[in-house]
Amino acid sequence: MKNKDQNKKFQLTENFIQEIIDLINNNDDKKLSNSFVEIHHADIAEILEELDFSHATYIIKLLDSEKTSDVLMELDDDYREKILKNLSTKEIAEEVQELDTDDATDIISELPEDRQKKVISKIEDKDHIADIKELLKYDDDSAGGLMAKELVKVNENWSVTRCVKEMRLQASEVTRVHSVYVVDNNNKLLGRLSLKDLLVSNPKSNIKSIYISKVDFVSVNDSGEHVASIMQKYDLGAIPVVDDNHVLLGRITIDDIVDLIKEEAEKDYQLAAGITQDVDVDDSIYKLSWARLPWLFLGLLGGIGAAALMGGFEEILFNYPILFYFTPLIAAMAGNVGVQSSAIIVQGLANDDINDSVNNRLFKETVLSVLNGIILAAILFVFIYYWDNNIDVALAISISLVAVIIVAGIVGTFIPLFLNKRGIDPAIATGPFITTSNDIFGILIYFMVAKTILQF
Amino acid sequence: MKNKDQNKKFQLTENFIQEIIDLINNNDDKKLSNSFVEIHHADIAEILEELDFSHATYIIKLLDSEKTSDVLMELDDDYREKILKNLSTKEIAEEVQELDTDDATDIISELPEDRQKKVISKIEDKDHIADIKELLKYDDDSAGGLMAKELVKVNENWSVTRCVKEMRLQASEVTRVHSVYVVDNNNKLLGRLSLKDLLVSNPKSNIKSIYISKVDFVSVNDSGEHVASIMQKYDLGAIPVVDDNHVLLGRITIDDIVDLIKEEAEKDYQLAAGITQDVDVDDSIYKLSWARLPWLFLGLLGGIGAAALMGGFEEILFNYPILFYFTPLIAAMAGNVGVQSSAIIVQGLANDDINDSVNNRLFKETVLSVLNGIILAAILFVFIYYWDNNIDVALAISISLVAVIIVAGIVGTFIPLFLNKRGIDPAIATGPFITTSNDIFGILIYFMVAKTILQF
Repeated sequence: MKNKDQNKKFQLTENFIQEIIDLINNNDDKKLSNSFVEIHHADIAEILEELDFSHATYIIKLLDSEKTSDVLMELDDDYREKILKNLSTKEIAEEVQELDTDDATDIISELPEDRQKKVISKIEDKDHIADIKELLKYDDDSAGGLMAKELVKVNENWSVTRCVKEMRLQASEVTRVHSVYVVDNNNKLLGRLSLKDLLVSNPKSNIKSIYISKVDFVSVNDSGEHVASIMQKYDLGAIPVVDDNHVLLGRITIDDIVDLIKEEAEKDYQLAAGITQDVDVDDSIYKLSWARLPWLFLGLLGGIGAAALMGGFEEILFNYPILFYFTPLIAAMAGNVGVQSSAIIVQGLANDDINDSVNNRLFKETVLSVLNGIILAAILFVFIYYWDNNIDVALAISISLVAVIIVAGIVGTFIPLFLNKRGIDPAIATGPFITTSNDIFGILIYFMVAKTILQF
Repeated sequence: MKNKDQNKKFQLTENFIQEIIDLINNNDDKKLSNSFVEIHHADIAEILEELDFSHATYIIKLLDSEKTSDVLMELDDDYREKILKNLSTKEIAEEVQELDTDDATDIISELPEDRQKKVISKIEDKDHIADIKELLKYDDDSAGGLMAKELVKVNENWSVTRCVKEMRLQASEVTRVHSVYVVDNNNKLLGRLSLKDLLVSNPKSNIKSIYISKVDFVSVNDSGEHVASIMQKYDLGAIPVVDDNHVLLGRITIDDIVDLIKEEAEKDYQLAAGITQDVDVDDSIYKLSWARLPWLFLGLLGGIGAAALMGGFEEILFNYPILFYFTPLIAAMAGNVGVQSSAIIVQGLANDDINDSVNNRLFKETVLSVLNGIILAAILFVFIYYWDNNIDVALAISISLVAVIIVAGIVGTFIPLFLNKRGIDPAIATGPFITTSNDIFGILIYFMVAKTILQF
């Protein structure tokens, strides 16, 4: 197990947190600074989230902005917003100065508008200001909103020697060199140069003769999802971003895309579970309650609707009370089938896996529902017949179940496809939305079919 | 829109598919080969999945294994399995020969055992065989199962000049150079060398004097999830894998981790939606039905349980039929609240976000449930009172609702925490499992509380 410990480079312990709090209370700034020297910024962010705001702010103000700027980027959005409120515009400007343009822009766009301008005016590096102002124009969720201006680019007309010399200058600005992009005199993207090729090639040769003209790229207005799918499909570590004239504007790296993919997946998961997006387990009770209430309210309305419906079938109640005992089963099956069929469509849409037409899809779902419905109804039939000894009742409930499952499957398939066509996130269709509407549909179909069979 | 078209480098059209089918039917191999020259292997995989197996196999056999090996890796697992069945062991060996060791091992491990040995014996490169045999030993879901043997490493005692020379040799074997790892004479990992540093440093200096000793790494037995969280947290493009003695064994790249993250998210989503994992929208009806039936069967059992329970309260039916009209509402609310609270715990566990103790967590959930319960019950009370004009009934149903919501919230919080402690995937707790048990619990609590209030 020795290696396991060695491996976890940093372990957040209560002792360590207490030590930090004590140092803050004693204003022992020197010892405090030293405690953080060896710790990775992602770990410092975890430590800060364990402290209260005044202590966290104290540490942010104490440490070098070279380090704290990276720490800020690792913090949870809400927590960062609160920390930024405690910093002066000058202090924020110092942090922003240290960050790559994409992160700098993210921080600034989180500020209220009046503070944005003040912070920008206090940044010293004029190029950095120009880049940030450009990036602020793009939509958050577009390639432009994801890209950074930092990249290494070389001109097709340079020699390898000049190229290496220029790259040294540019590389000092860039945290990690993924690819070297090749442009023409008008800054239009021509291709790329792998560092590997550069290492292997003759210093006297011309870039024009060694670069690879096949290069993946995205347009500045493409959606973040599109960028993610391209980078995933073609296994790219970074991708250049161009404008309509093919001019190279920036690049997007895979680590930002990994975050995007995780966020998308979490959003879908939360929608399916009936939580409006963007809550963490550690959020306040007020926020958590607010995230759940709309869905529960929808469920309540659905339940009231179902109750009103059942009230309309009161005449059956006294002859066949057993029909009423099975309404939760019918509602549950309608809900489950609906969620299953919509979830598989939502996932297929997200992965661009759906090649059939809507009609084929609905046909397949119907066959599937008939199959599942008959198997389940057969089991239910046996149970009810043994319980109630009335073959008509057992038949009525079982046949209704098949009908309910078929309709639920079709509704579950159709709604996400419909929403997607309308440009609405189909993930909304899963979870309480479909469960609730299927509850009502299910119960209505159930009583109608049962009533017909029992010949009222 | 011009740029949009230019951007999507390859568009799969029905015309193109038909053209390919025609060429196959005419045995026009030359034209067929030419059609694929300019197409990326990820796109070829998409084309093959549109064709039937005999056609797809024809193309795999026709094209160079240098290209088809990459195509095979992009195919859906099930589809690849079927294609591999149509290839001879010699043909598979040729494909495997072209692949990096991690992909090669994946392909071989998918084969039946007797074919595995035959394929391995037909690989020509002895080093490749040794690497694959080593990788086959590791668990699929461990760092060892994810890593590739291909990497660029240099000895601390080399000069930069020797280093560049050796790297040229090694780099030709490696598709993409992420990092250069520095080892001692015993192959123990000492640190890393960025290509950037190598570009910038004096050719005469010694590696010992320029390498960075701080290097992230994982142990060969670490779980895939652990690797993913480390690489995400520290924004790594690649990470070296070492054994217990710190000997460098291989490296894992971010593209494999992106796939892992997506798979994990999809698995959780499917569990929440009540689909046993690993189905795609395009799978056969038989497979899709099989993936859904277990959960529906669970729902059926739950519904039968609820029906039996309600049968036990038949005495109430004739005095207060309205109580029975609200059972779907109660079941739905219990299910929704349970899924909401378990989903937020499952997500918190996945992100390592849960810092509180179990007691704190249950307390928070209780407060939240009381709050939400009272708001919803108040609305329900007003509705029922206007409908039935009986204040006792309205009170009984509303108070039961609060009780049901509280219990559902606690159960939804407790079960995933409990499963996680027992080493079981907590994601199972969401979806039909919790919905079903909460249906029964909910209805039982509902009738018990209502009965007490209405004083039977």
